Amino acid sequence: MTKPLVGVIMGSTSDWETMQEACSILDELQVPYEKKVVSAHRTPDLMFEYAASAKERGLEVIIAGAGGAAHLPGMVAAKTELPVIGVPVKSAALNGLDSLLSIVQMPGGVPVATVAIGKAGAINAGLLAAQILGIKYPDIQQRFTARREAVKQTVLEAGEL
Amino acid sequence: MTKPLVGVIMGSTSDWETMQEACSILDELQVPYEKKVVSAHRTPDLMFEYAASAKERGLEVIIAGAGGAAHLPGMVAAKTELPVIGVPVKSAALNGLDSLLSIVQMPGGVPVATVAIGKAGAINAGLLAAQILGIKYPDIQQRFTARREAVKQTVLEAGEL
Amino acid sequence: MTKPLVGVIMGSTSDWETMQEACSILDELQVPYEKKVVSAHRTPDLMFEYAASAKERGLEVIIAGAGGAAHLPGMVAAKTELPVIGVPVKSAALNGLDSLLSIVQMPGGVPVATVAIGKAGAINAGLLAAQILGIKYPDIQQRFTARREAVKQTVLEAGEL
Amino acid sequence: MTKPLVGVIMGSTSDWETMQEACSILDELQVPYEKKVVSAHRTPDLMFEYAASAKERGLEVIIAGAGGAAHLPGMVAAKTELPVIGVPVKSAALNGLDSLLSIVQMPGGVPVATVAIGKAGAINAGLLAAQILGIKYPDIQQRFTARREAVKQTVLEAGEL
Amino acid sequence: MTKPLVGVIMGSTSDWETMQEACSILDELQVPYEKKVVSAHRTPDLMFEYAASAKERGLEVIIAGAGGAAHLPGMVAAKTELPVIGVPVKSAALNGLDSLLSIVQMPGGVPVATVAIGKAGAINAGLLAAQILGIKYPDIQQRFTARREAVKQTVLEAGEL
Amino acid sequence: MTKPLVGVIMGSTSDWETMQEACSILDELQVPYEKKVVSAHRTPDLMFEYAASAKERGLEVIIAGAGGAAHLPGMVAAKTELPVIGVPVKSAALNGLDSLLSIVQMPGGVPVATVAIGKAGAINAGLLAAQILGIKYPDIQQRFTARREAVKQTVLEAGEL
Amino acid sequence: MTKPLVGVIMGSTSDWETMQEACSILDELQVPYEKKVVSAHRTPDLMFEYAASAKERGLEVIIAGAGGAAHLPGMVAAKTELPVIGVPVKSAALNGLDSLLSIVQMPGGVPVATVAIGKAGAINAGLLAAQILGIKYPDIQQRFTARREAVKQTVLEAGEL
Amino acid sequence: MTKPLVGVIMGSTSDWETMQEACSILDELQVPYEKKVVSAHRTPDLMFEYAASAKERGLEVIIAGAGGAAHLPGMVAAKTELPVIGVPVKSAALNGLDSLLSIVQMPGGVPVATVAIGKAGAINAGLLAAQILGIKYPDIQQRFTARREAVKQTVLEAGEL
Repeated sequence: MTKPLVGVIMGSTSDWETMQEACSILDELQVPYEKKVVSAHRTPDLMFEYAASAKERGLEVIIAGAGGAAHLPGMVAAKTELPVIGVPVKSAALNGLDSLLSIVQMPGGVPVATVAIGKAGAINAGLLAAQILGIKYPDIQQRFTARREAVKQTVLEAGEL
Repeated sequence: MTKPLVGVIMGSTSDWETMQEACSILDELQVPYEKKVVSAHRTPDLMFEYAASAKERGLEVIIAGAGGAAHLPGMVAAKTELPVIGVPVKSAALNGLDSLLSIVQMPGGVPVATVAIGKAGAINAGLLAAQILGIKYPDIQQRFTARREAVKQTVLEAGEL
Repeated sequence: MTKPLVGVIMGSTSDWETMQEACSILDELQVPYEKKVVSAHRTPDLMFEYAASAKERGLEVIIAGAGGAAHLPGMVAAKTELPVIGVPVKSAALNGLDSLLSIVQMPGGVPVATVAIGKAGAINAGLLAAQILGIKYPDIQQRFTARREAVKQTVLEAGEL
Repeated sequence: MTKPLVGVIMGSTSDWETMQEACSILDELQVPYEKKVVSAHRTPDLMFEYAASAKERGLEVIIAGAGGAAHLPGMVAAKTELPVIGVPVKSAALNGLDSLLSIVQMPGGVPVATVAIGKAGAINAGLLAAQILGIKYPDIQQRFTARREAVKQTVLEAGEL
Repeated sequence: MTKPLVGVIMGSTSDWETMQEACSILDELQVPYEKKVVSAHRTPDLMFEYAASAKERGLEVIIAGAGGAAHLPGMVAAKTELPVIGVPVKSAALNGLDSLLSIVQMPGGVPVATVAIGKAGAINAGLLAAQILGIKYPDIQQRFTARREAVKQTVLEAGEL
Repeated sequence: MTKPLVGVIMGSTSDWETMQEACSILDELQVPYEKKVVSAHRTPDLMFEYAASAKERGLEVIIAGAGGAAHLPGMVAAKTELPVIGVPVKSAALNGLDSLLSIVQMPGGVPVATVAIGKAGAINAGLLAAQILGIKYPDIQQRFTARREAVKQTVLEAGEL
Repeated sequence: MTKPLVGVIMGSTSDWETMQEACSILDELQVPYEKKVVSAHRTPDLMFEYAASAKERGLEVIIAGAGGAAHLPGMVAAKTELPVIGVPVKSAALNGLDSLLSIVQMPGGVPVATVAIGKAGAINAGLLAAQILGIKYPDIQQRFTARREAVKQTVLEAGEL
Repeated sequence: MTKPLVGVIMGSTSDWETMQEACSILDELQVPYEKKVVSAHRTPDLMFEYAASAKERGLEVIIAGAGGAAHLPGMVAAKTELPVIGVPVKSAALNGLDSLLSIVQMPGGVPVATVAIGKAGAINAGLLAAQILGIKYPDIQQRFTARREAVKQTVLEAGEL
């Protein structure tokens, strides 16, 4: 059993449909991770404990997905020195534009590495975590590079419509 | 020295230019209040302590102003049973549309009573706090009603251009 | 039969699908309320009478839902000293962005406590009404706090995906 | 002294800078009008009286300008059978997009004839009032047509840069 | 056979689903009208002829519906002295926000009386045409007023949910 | 005196500040052009004549700039078989977002080659006209390519900050 | 076998549903073309080779469709002297508004001739390519003009609803 | 002379005013970096070489700032296995909303770690680079943590207004 390097958290079980894409990528690149529902608004103390203890528990990157007034990524980022990746989940009325602005428009001092709205963003959150870890762990970087090369071949073969 | 009933907080000293409008209204209506810079992102523990102890310290309403990825009102609301009024401060790039969406689009479970962007919103935050307190304290409601009547007279007199 | 403390009004019967969420919360928290269709544009006199007589009829908070050029919450607020909570109902073309701006961007002088677009907003309107009443009625505040604690437990149990 | 055919109203004296453009056009086309500050939110009863009595006082068209949660045009339209022209005044934070949506997105049943944001809109409100009156008063239509022809000549002469 | 007073035109047969709402209102209020597909972009000469001859053919108001880069209402307005009502039809990608801005943001000199996006707007275009004609034809105004009263009664009866 | 290949038109003299950038590029690349104020709304017949006669007068590309409900590019495109480039001029209230949508969202059948809002767009309109002409006139293509190479060198030299 | 004059490229096979509309138009107007999936992000080297060699391979116009952060049209434009037409493909969360801004808001120096979002834009991309080629190849211009005339007749016949 | 770990690039010298904030943070945290103007559109080959050689030259993180149709971050990300941080520079017409969407809405496969629009974003880009490097270099993480603690103290001291 490998110790998780990435913590994948989300504000609600309904975010899992989106966030599982991040986990699939981490599985594919053999990056050990843990996953959990942690709500900024409904379980604020758990969120603070999770973020504050993340580093000592061995995590090196956190991926946080949330929708609407999406406070989870930014609040976690305020409580940890680890890089935090924020995934704006598509919201009911405004299609995730609210999620995006709530995550990306952080004030100077507390960055959140924001990716695209929805599933494409969750995929990229997994890949970005791998890129970040890759500067420390050469084997993760190699698997990242190999996957990218494989994707390129698929596109090249699909080129003729 | 009257004990404060309203806590006016803001994410940054730069928000004071906006938030002083709320304080002016509270002064005018003789509603005792305290004011403080409490940053969701830079002083998250202070924010939680402030919110969690607000009721026992005698506060009955909290007014929180913030801009950009404005997490202060929503996070305070997650940590107190008191009604929280959120003021979206005008932001540098997006004129407060980001602040507004970050404050108002809260998930079901944790309301923030959101008012307009900028100074008009801060004025209305002061008035809304007085309306809320007014259902418990008749003298505050009377002063609110008297002020409204006075404003109406001013408009009526200004009617002829 | 308990006298209603909250008036839940909406601009059209089609808003009921959204606004019933507010009523469900008030039922759950045992906050007595009345509900009614009152249209700013089609029954303006009824709206004015409703708002102007709300306080003397014993109401202490008004929840008003409307969509599009959603004038109901703001006009009711102009005619009563009670706090008014506005729920932006999702609209056909612009998904409630028009409703939100029409409700929240009130001029200085007449606040509307605005919540999120759609059902999440209606839920929060019910909760916010309970929070406001809770500063006067300790039992409502206790039920609000108990509900919040129960929700937290549900999230904690759902934490492991 | 000619009896006014057009009522030009606005929510605040600060709207006069915009709305005077409508009055200038009416002066130019010799359309008699009256002008007045009538606030939907601060003087709601005056607004209702103004609108309800407009027809019997001889008005045939109303021009109403307002900014932000601009309820004046729509509420006046709810209280009169006369055509109402709405001018979205440019607002502090959102540049009049809020004013525009609050005025134009009226529900089926109560139209507001909405024109452009700001001064161009106020000019066009004056012209639209003249066009509407022009179907009843041929001399107003003739002056409208003559003005349009004169503007065309000015553009034609300016054609060579 | 009564001579039409209103011309209802639209840019495409696909706009008919929306624009028939305007025609239904005109039928209901017994306002004689004609209807036609006239495309600004595909039949520009027909559009100019239609607009330029509208007054002499006896029309007194034109209702024009279009979607996307909706040029029909504004171009017709440039070629007639009659009041032109513009209906922004809901568009495929941007839900009619493009239609709305293309119709309402006319430069000073050529007004278009713009109503809401989609079917509510088409209903209101019919009603606004009746209001405009009503200042000249008392019977149309009476039918408009009677319809409004009937709608009010329906809402009042629906008031109890 | 070389016969113009490009017609640069704009809706108002106030657009010249923007549109002169297109002319500067055409001067620099020695592409002969004419320039003129042609208003869709104030001089619609001139616009139609201009567009309809453009090809027989020897023009091969038209550049049209306009702001707000910017109908000029699309209407010219409806009346000529030549390629039309549209420049959205920055508008007073909405910063050119209205101009952009009014120009680019043309219905299938009548394309407008739209460039960026404001001066960058006007520069690119001049360059795009040169690229289009360049497939027919090799010397224009050569001057375009030489200019691009020179710009690249400037950037390369500026690379060290 | 005619040598292609137009290169139709797209970022992903999922864009084909939109982009085939451009190909249908080119087929209809007998403009020879090639089509290919070329991804800016997944096959960047192929994209550069494609663009850099386009002219020498005989292409005269490139049509590039992409969605979201749609970099394909702009990057191809940076690597060729040929005119590039950009088609914003409708995106999952933001309906193509992101695609549109990413394509049209190019900096001064590198134009992309942008058309409408989605299928209407793809149709217009095909027509615009034909218009551009038409200034060099009279037979293409004749077929373009004939098609437009035929469309006009269809609309005229559909005029009576 | 320490070998740079971070490459700070931007599309234009005019972006330096914004991007220098990132460099100030890197200076403050003693993270070695290089800085350079690299334009996606004007120097595409340089951009590709820069990105493709970044890893072998010893860089571990890239910060890329750009405005408008901001292709630089995404294209660099397509050509390197290193994590790329994108800074949306405020643009002339749309205040950086276009920059933000062009950078953040990347398709699944090629992430860009996006931060806020403008100077706050540039500050956070520097901090995020330090956080990423901090998981490999404990001294950088320590300096990051010390800076955050110092900022917190400043806010705490500023708390009393």
